[in-house]
Amino acid sequence: MPEISPRLTGINEGGDDGWGVFYKARRMKADGIDVTELTIGEHDIRTDPAILDAMHAAARGGHTGYAMIPGVAALRQRVADRIRNRTGVATTQANVLITPGGQAGLFAAHVAACPPGRRALYIDPYYATYPGTLRAAGAQAVAIPTRSEDGFLPDPAAVDAAAAQGAASLLINSPNNPTGVVYPDTTLRALADICTDRDLWLISDEVYDTQVWQGTHLSPRALPGMADRTLVIGSMSKSHAMTGSRIGWIVGPEPAIAALIDLATTTTYGVPGFIQDAALFALDQGTAFEARIAEPFRRRRDAVLDVIARQQIVRAIPSSGAMYLMLDIRATGLSGQDFALHLLDSHRIAVMPGESFGRSAAGHLRVALTVADDRLVQAVETLCAFAAKAAISA
Amino acid sequence: MPEISPRLTGINEGGDDGWGVFYKARRMKADGIDVTELTIGEHDIRTDPAILDAMHAAARGGHTGYAMIPGVAALRQRVADRIRNRTGVATTQANVLITPGGQAGLFAAHVAACPPGRRALYIDPYYATYPGTLRAAGAQAVAIPTRSEDGFLPDPAAVDAAAAQGAASLLINSPNNPTGVVYPDTTLRALADICTDRDLWLISDEVYDTQVWQGTHLSPRALPGMADRTLVIGSMSKSHAMTGSRIGWIVGPEPAIAALIDLATTTTYGVPGFIQDAALFALDQGTAFEARIAEPFRRRRDAVLDVIARQQIVRAIPSSGAMYLMLDIRATGLSGQDFALHLLDSHRIAVMPGESFGRSAAGHLRVALTVADDRLVQAVETLCAFAAKAAISA
Ligand SMILES: Cc1ncc(COP(=O)(O)O)c(C=O)c1O
Ligand SMILES: Cc1ncc(COP(=O)(O)O)c(C=O)c1O
Repeated sequence: MPEISPRLTGINEGGDDGWGVFYKARRMKADGIDVTELTIGEHDIRTDPAILDAMHAAARGGHTGYAMIPGVAALRQRVADRIRNRTGVATTQANVLITPGGQAGLFAAHVAACPPGRRALYIDPYYATYPGTLRAAGAQAVAIPTRSEDGFLPDPAAVDAAAAQGAASLLINSPNNPTGVVYPDTTLRALADICTDRDLWLISDEVYDTQVWQGTHLSPRALPGMADRTLVIGSMSKSHAMTGSRIGWIVGPEPAIAALIDLATTTTYGVPGFIQDAALFALDQGTAFEARIAEPFRRRRDAVLDVIARQQIVRAIPSSGAMYLMLDIRATGLSGQDFALHLLDSHRIAVMPGESFGRSAAGHLRVALTVADDRLVQAVETLCAFAAKAAISA
Repeated sequence: MPEISPRLTGINEGGDDGWGVFYKARRMKADGIDVTELTIGEHDIRTDPAILDAMHAAARGGHTGYAMIPGVAALRQRVADRIRNRTGVATTQANVLITPGGQAGLFAAHVAACPPGRRALYIDPYYATYPGTLRAAGAQAVAIPTRSEDGFLPDPAAVDAAAAQGAASLLINSPNNPTGVVYPDTTLRALADICTDRDLWLISDEVYDTQVWQGTHLSPRALPGMADRTLVIGSMSKSHAMTGSRIGWIVGPEPAIAALIDLATTTTYGVPGFIQDAALFALDQGTAFEARIAEPFRRRRDAVLDVIARQQIVRAIPSSGAMYLMLDIRATGLSGQDFALHLLDSHRIAVMPGESFGRSAAGHLRVALTVADDRLVQAVETLCAFAAKAAISA
């Protein structure tokens, strides 16, 4: 066999990345064991039947041929309107590329923003695919650590220091996976200033923008001058429980979108037309629909925080969005990974070790709020009791 | 705005690439003009309603969450069986990655095969996205010209000479778009030997493998030793009239597929589960279904060749597959582009100039067999009459 390109073999760094717990939980389930899975960002509901019926109607209506590569005009317009309404920034179809999911948007945005070998900055802890995505896009992935004590908010001085060493882009994610943190305006303004001063692209992953439990979500595209250097990543996955439909978008300056359309011609060749029609239908259901999809996570978050408030060992990271909670279990003396593995073995509860999301989240756990309220509360009670026992024996 | 990566701005070479005719035809149609469009590889039928119903049943049945990134097990197995049956080579699920279309497969295969900056060989004339795809994947795209007089078959000596200068991969496409040529076994064996001698990956685009009108299609994966260095690109687009569903595959050696799964994790994050279920349903309809989809092109090809046989100016390139015919119009003294533009202006018939598919096809036209038989025959009669007039005035 000839050589496989180091671009691919270098996507995953060696070593256990903490996903062992996830795979073990999947194997246990496959073996018929009843595991409470609080691992990945998958809703416990399916895509709404009305959306699926709209998809079928579009397909049966004949929208089964090659669709326009940048996206169906009506959907591009709908996304442009959405972003304009949220940011107050002029946004037209020419600022929008429809992509097969947010992940495809993250990859394409980094290919556009980062000439091969340039440094691409991202914040640790991070969504698990980030470093591999940056490397697959040909960039040098540079993590900027944060501290649990700072609520995992990036320190602008640290970002500026990393940018000063030369970088093409900064990737941020608010509301954040895995921490649930929504970046305050002051942080966003400071980061925007760094991007302007250091001439960086800001790649703003806003796939959780409909899941904000406290305060508001500010898109950095709205900040002065930033529409010219921001690539917003959006997705229907989380907002509309359409994870499996693979549909999202990139919003950015017109020349960048034009270049990204050239890339799409050679990578995806567009997104199924009937899925785009379904997405348009879903967006047309308005914010009430989105609130209905988000509601269980808000409710469950409150319930879990109540459980956490009743004990002293496990600390919740102050968060105000997304479908996860990050728990600090350092008082147990265990690593996130050891804790998660033992919890799975002894109580058949699967949570993600913080280590899966970067070094900064060592000694933490990410709990996905993706099972029914009762079961979730019970699982977190068990988790806290387990932590208490571990803390005593430590 | 910060710099856009030269990776993107370099995808399209400057200059008119012959697609002006296509866009002009589209504009005329949008303006309500009745254009006979013989341009792109889109069936004149829609996806079969039974396939769409299977898709809807899968979606309504709950297959709407994130699907396995390498593809649904049953579909990977079905594709593995298909390839094993056709090649006699052991092929398992681990040799198969499901991709969102053949184009995504072409891109990913080149990212896997070509370390950044390495030379990637391809044959001219070519499917229009090829050079841009190779460049987007980070490779240096190197065209190997062929001659109309050789039926546009690659000359092994020319391929070997290009490989001798150093290259990571060779991309071939049989049955071929745009020429309709099906590579004879002798050509495939010679190319396979070059790949072995020069340690190249062979990327074999077989998306037209169900459209063979004469002889048989040999997949180079079947040749001795080649399963270890061949990445086969497959697609449901042409075989099952599912262009808009964006589903295809890569079949290759296990370690390459494993690396490609890492790439998929950072680019596509899988293919919609309900589309995979629809593809499985479509493949389960068997070869009779595929023959039914292919049949109109076989019939129309014969009808067009009858028209061509009745005159002397326009010569058809001997071909035996795919949904196109390539016509040599050099006897008119016109370029393919001038001919196509004049034909569109004066007769509202749109064909692709050979120049759109590379320098080797200058002075040729590609006719897609994608309108009803009568209309197609009439259009080609008009084209021949137009050619005769041009030849006289030349
Ligand atoms: C922060 C973040 N960004 C992007 C994605 C990708 O979402 P998708 O590709 O389903 O749109 C996810 C999915 O979990 C995520 O958590
Ligand atoms: C030779 C060839 N390869 C690949 C493709 C891509 O097909 P798809 O991405 O629809 O599977 C095409 C489409 O026209 C083609 O002609």
